[in-house]
Amino acid sequence: MSVDAYSELQQQIHFLLEIDRLKCVVRQSRLADGSRRENSAEHSWHLAMFATTLCQHAEGETNVCRVVQLLLLHDVIEIDAGDTPIHSSNRSKSELAAAEAQAARRIFGLLPTGQARQFEALWHEFEAGETNEARFAKALDRLQPLLLNVAVGGGTWSENGVREEQVIERYGPTIKAGSPSLWDAAQELVRGHFSRQT
Amino acid sequence: MSVDAYSELQQQIHFLLEIDRLKCVVRQSRLADGSRRENSAEHSWHLAMFATTLCQHAEGETNVCRVVQLLLLHDVIEIDAGDTPIHSSNRSKSELAAAEAQAARRIFGLLPTGQARQFEALWHEFEAGETNEARFAKALDRLQPLLLNVAVGGGTWSENGVREEQVIERYGPTIKAGSPSLWDAAQELVRGHFSRQT
Repeated sequence: MSVDAYSELQQQIHFLLEIDRLKCVVRQSRLADGSRRENSAEHSWHLAMFATTLCQHAEGETNVCRVVQLLLLHDVIEIDAGDTPIHSSNRSKSELAAAEAQAARRIFGLLPTGQARQFEALWHEFEAGETNEARFAKALDRLQPLLLNVAVGGGTWSENGVREEQVIERYGPTIKAGSPSLWDAAQELVRGHFSRQT
Repeated sequence: MSVDAYSELQQQIHFLLEIDRLKCVVRQSRLADGSRRENSAEHSWHLAMFATTLCQHAEGETNVCRVVQLLLLHDVIEIDAGDTPIHSSNRSKSELAAAEAQAARRIFGLLPTGQARQFEALWHEFEAGETNEARFAKALDRLQPLLLNVAVGGGTWSENGVREEQVIERYGPTIKAGSPSLWDAAQELVRGHFSRQT
């Protein structure tokens, strides 16, 4: 291996050990068995499995490999910026965006230059949500906690006093934009859940 | 959505909630900060990031998307069959293979037929380790716990009294088959680790 290639590999190994910390970023959602809250690394794996399993339901022509890449990377910035709960965040959008952009620069910046740019571009693509792949990835990132909340009988909805119409409002636009058919199925689950609460 | 498509989606959602249980399968490796043992879901995410980051080091022409798919799926069977530690397993190879094959049939069998066959074939491809993609995936599945052990100053090696020559013997062939250059780098880390122990 050349000296350059060896030095690049050292940077890559450093990055891979640094992102191990994503396993310690705890989200609000509980696991499907309710036993504990989910961390962002296992959440990212679950989402990549959602993409692989549900790709036929994506709206428009969608490259599933790219969706998986977006999802594997999308939460890495939480190592510095933390998780932002959908129902109880007290940070402004601009404050959060600045913290996340800084985190992306630091963490992806551990990699060799070309790869750093490539990973950061994928993260920006996810955030912007303008490609079919990013829209579908974002839809899955909303669908998964919805399914977990239904599975545990309320989860973050019960904890935050979230009503049915707020669920429709907070999850609907993002899921529907990536997959109208998944939103149809999700809405039915949400209706079923809230009808059991009354 | 047609009745068939709707019924397929129900099966897919059932599968995605079932595999949530992989987050509760605990492996022997500790996280890089030593704080706790790793679970198989976050391990699978980490490996998918290894594949994405290190694909230039794969031996032979390798489709990185396929490597990622193999790694996302490779441990799902542990939900039924459990994790098999490299240094302290007391199960025979044939007993383990039978338990894992049965797990694959049950878990992937939750999916619509075509998808069940596709996922099960990917799992068999990983296990067989005969394609470039499977060889590289298996190499990463050995490299990651090696890096974690070095990061925590011993980990499963210290716990099981594993010596340097045993590490070389147990990790070397698999890592080298998928990536000679990664094995060169890994050997150096192993040598450095054991030289600090004496």
